[in-house]
Amino acid sequence: MRQEMLTSILSDLNGTSADIEASAIISSDGLMMACLLPSGLDEDRIGAMSAAMLSLGSRISQELGRGGLEQVLVKGDRGYVLMTSAGDDAVLSVLAKPNARLGLIFLDVKRAAEATRKLI
Amino acid sequence: MRQEMLTSILSDLNGTSADIEASAIISSDGLMMACLLPSGLDEDRIGAMSAAMLSLGSRISQELGRGGLEQVLVKGDRGYVLMTSAGDDAVLSVLAKPNARLGLIFLDVKRAAEATRKLI
Repeated sequence: MRQEMLTSILSDLNGTSADIEASAIISSDGLMMACLLPSGLDEDRIGAMSAAMLSLGSRISQELGRGGLEQVLVKGDRGYVLMTSAGDDAVLSVLAKPNARLGLIFLDVKRAAEATRKLI
Repeated sequence: MRQEMLTSILSDLNGTSADIEASAIISSDGLMMACLLPSGLDEDRIGAMSAAMLSLGSRISQELGRGGLEQVLVKGDRGYVLMTSAGDDAVLSVLAKPNARLGLIFLDVKRAAEATRKLI
């Protein structure tokens, strides 16, 4: 039931922009809670990578005086990974295309992370 | 001599925006090459954190099909850390204020990273 509601948040999110290729909600220890991924992408890999990045990002944010972690954006030459805290226990990860309109994606992902936080 | 030129790149960069609080050029193994930091920020800490983040970011970018790493942005509730590859051997790290105009900072940092890449 809760998983269906989380999947529905992801489905809404992926629908907001053709630039979003995949999305997933992951517990802070790296386990998948819900995901909408294209075939060829490994759930476990996204989970483990997101949890590791959030953990290091959180430490960097604290150590360099930037406060509590909100988001980590990784830009590669073939696209973006955007990881957003959804409360203390989960992270929302999104894969986006290289020329994605980041401003819109930040906004839509922030909303989806807020909906996720309320649900879990 | 080279260090003076790197410091001059940082000085120009910090001058482009009042939102930029600090900047540093760090070798890919985490050693400081040049920096303009406010007092209270530890050089070694910025170096180590930037190198760790670039290393993990690079792995995530590859593993999730995003190609070669270009940038990592960490957003905390008290500001941003933006790390940008400057060639294979260095990273340009910038600390910015919470309400920084990200579009402008991305642009200015990209230019500074390109100038750094040419120099080292």
